[in-house]
Amino acid sequence: MSARRDSAAAPAPAPLAGQPFFRSRWAAAPAHVRELGLDAGLPGGFRAAGVVAGLKPSGKADVGLLVCDAERPTSAARFTASATAAAPVLLTRERCRLEALRAILANSGCANAATGRRGLDDAAKTQGAAALAAGVDPAEVALASTGGISQYLAVDAMLKGILQAREQLRADGDVDFQQAIQTTDAFEKRANLEVRLPSGNVRLSAQCKGAGMISPLFATMLCFIETDAALSAETADLLLGVCVKRSFERVSVDGQLSTNDTAILMCSGASGVSVAPASEDELRLGEALDALLRELAIMLVADGEGAGRIARVIVRDAPGAGADTVETAARAVANSPLVKAALHSGDPNWGRIVQAIGGALAQHARALGRGDAPAAPLALDVAIEGIQVCRAGAAVPYDEPALARAVARAEVEYEVTMRTRPPGRDTIGAETEVFFSDLSHEYVTLNADYST
Amino acid sequence: MSARRDSAAAPAPAPLAGQPFFRSRWAAAPAHVRELGLDAGLPGGFRAAGVVAGLKPSGKADVGLLVCDAERPTSAARFTASATAAAPVLLTRERCRLEALRAILANSGCANAATGRRGLDDAAKTQGAAALAAGVDPAEVALASTGGISQYLAVDAMLKGILQAREQLRADGDVDFQQAIQTTDAFEKRANLEVRLPSGNVRLSAQCKGAGMISPLFATMLCFIETDAALSAETADLLLGVCVKRSFERVSVDGQLSTNDTAILMCSGASGVSVAPASEDELRLGEALDALLRELAIMLVADGEGAGRIARVIVRDAPGAGADTVETAARAVANSPLVKAALHSGDPNWGRIVQAIGGALAQHARALGRGDAPAAPLALDVAIEGIQVCRAGAAVPYDEPALARAVARAEVEYEVTMRTRPPGRDTIGAETEVFFSDLSHEYVTLNADYST
Repeated sequence: MSARRDSAAAPAPAPLAGQPFFRSRWAAAPAHVRELGLDAGLPGGFRAAGVVAGLKPSGKADVGLLVCDAERPTSAARFTASATAAAPVLLTRERCRLEALRAILANSGCANAATGRRGLDDAAKTQGAAALAAGVDPAEVALASTGGISQYLAVDAMLKGILQAREQLRADGDVDFQQAIQTTDAFEKRANLEVRLPSGNVRLSAQCKGAGMISPLFATMLCFIETDAALSAETADLLLGVCVKRSFERVSVDGQLSTNDTAILMCSGASGVSVAPASEDELRLGEALDALLRELAIMLVADGEGAGRIARVIVRDAPGAGADTVETAARAVANSPLVKAALHSGDPNWGRIVQAIGGALAQHARALGRGDAPAAPLALDVAIEGIQVCRAGAAVPYDEPALARAVARAEVEYEVTMRTRPPGRDTIGAETEVFFSDLSHEYVTLNADYST
Repeated sequence: MSARRDSAAAPAPAPLAGQPFFRSRWAAAPAHVRELGLDAGLPGGFRAAGVVAGLKPSGKADVGLLVCDAERPTSAARFTASATAAAPVLLTRERCRLEALRAILANSGCANAATGRRGLDDAAKTQGAAALAAGVDPAEVALASTGGISQYLAVDAMLKGILQAREQLRADGDVDFQQAIQTTDAFEKRANLEVRLPSGNVRLSAQCKGAGMISPLFATMLCFIETDAALSAETADLLLGVCVKRSFERVSVDGQLSTNDTAILMCSGASGVSVAPASEDELRLGEALDALLRELAIMLVADGEGAGRIARVIVRDAPGAGADTVETAARAVANSPLVKAALHSGDPNWGRIVQAIGGALAQHARALGRGDAPAAPLALDVAIEGIQVCRAGAAVPYDEPALARAVARAEVEYEVTMRTRPPGRDTIGAETEVFFSDLSHEYVTLNADYST
């Protein structure tokens, strides 16, 4: 979203080539999901392209077009909740037939955000051109932009790019399309999967970009998912909504909600496999989509600007407490620069976790008008990689060498149990998780050296 | 609060020696306030000491004792709102006669936080020993600690330190006392002032520490203020409360509320000048205290971990909007790692200001149950050092070389006007300010390389 990756400063993260897509222990592939190669192409009914329109100074691909050729496609979408949402988000959210999209026009190199009325007009022009190029109605074309905020869109370059992309639409154009939506991403976040449903096999593909300004609320950065399964628009919306909540809404690179987050699921039905509501097919497809989006979300964190190590924090509360409390606590840990700096250096500095939660809950209580500091401190339990370090708010002895080894690995897991209410009830308390990256010198370099 | 300053990595900030105390354009000294030398000693009625008790691996001073010898001193205090407040905060807040304190026992090298019941017992032991040393009641001894969270206090070392400090109490012991409360501070934050009141001259002294984990809510890091004016406890509380709200509560280094923030004002009355409620004396003393605490707060930010450049963001709202909206927006700007990284490199990347406010207001609205994203984006006006860059949410042309020069200075000011409600009413909208520091490589170094 924000900066060019400075290849001189950035250690190159491991590329995807040769590695399985499902790599994180936090997002295992279900047994009925099979990974296809990255060159397997899009599901039936889809074509895509990515071209160089000149929006990026680097001269890399920057305009992507994706078209669904099905007669009656269905779709679903989620967008950023930002109060300063970008023009393409506003236009798509308000003017498009989100349940029946036939095309996506995406660009990098310019977010078209903080551009006011002119930004909306510019977006509308490109939407019209893309509709013409794809042979569909403008209301069937979703727009998605990423890049610098506060810059106006180079409309003429976009229009030329759209014409060029139209000529290059191909069933395996997802490779180029992915290139066109990337900004500071160090590696591509893309998958082609086969899903075995009781009624037959279907395909799932996704192209996704992230890197900086990543703390999605309600939706995400840019992620486009295609399937050749036949879903009603309602089923598509239900599945996308549930899976987005369990994936992109649970990650943070820098706690910064973007102006342009967009996730779109498109269904061509080209497989002939129909997924009925509340069927075993729906359940299985949902499991596959869930695993796909969770792995993509974790990849976003792993490729967060400057990220070298990633973590999951799980926060549970004692019975009776609200979901907002665990959410506030988990976000506070994930976005604390002190916790993130400790994660960076493999330092088991769990005092910072306690501090981050204590501070955030105080601010949360104040925001909700629940008054000031509590009389007694929170009785927190904290464990890192299963090693308990704090019980009921106080330090406990632990195996220090074992903990040092655990926090030096590529993925670190923190578990926090809060006791904001008296224990003893037998109801189940709230629980949440947030995935996050570390705070590194490279994050500072990337975001300090980038000039508007 | 957190890390040792790595002198190899840290460029040495300018020391205080030879410079006036009031240096920032954001905190000018009132005409009736005169700066005394840093060796002027404490106001009448106070003695202090700072000693090496061995709590810090560096072997620097770590235990400070401050005693008021007046017959009937008055005092006031403010503490962190953290839900995981440290043992010294809990004990002082709940057990002390905060309106009539006679002594302060302060230590660095250990925060005594996340230490549970044992931490409270340890704190009580040192409180008892300090009371004995000062010849006062334990309930008249305030405790303040700073250092690593999750470590238990070395009580025996503390007790020896207290005995040693008792022998060294002196009227000019504020120099040593200041040393004993510092952690990663690169320069001392201390002042000796003379204040001309209509009823006579009085003295004000303050010793303050900051550096990291700085985002005070309700109170602050550690700050001790002494005066020889005679104030009722109610007046002292009123003045401290108002001035803390306009100073320490308006700064952020890293958005991290500490477990140990403490600010205490002590009044000996030794000058014989009595400050009556609602008098001209009270007004003038209040102005002096206000300027003193604002300059100290700005110094905290300037000496924030890794800070190289500091900023003020002012957020105004159109008439009719609530104070919570401008507060949320200003904090979001001050704590955004993207805004802070741009500040670090002198980059006028104002799109990140728009993004930070848009994201925070969306999360704020959701926390308050006010629903999802608004239909239209916020019509923000943004100016940097008086140069308007954004009007009603859209980029406007500006003098780029002038802006580049402005953001390269040591202090940068951002002004944001929001229009969350329709304009046209003639009531005055809410307004707030937050001072903050940049995000630098040194912050990462300081907080990544420090091990518990």
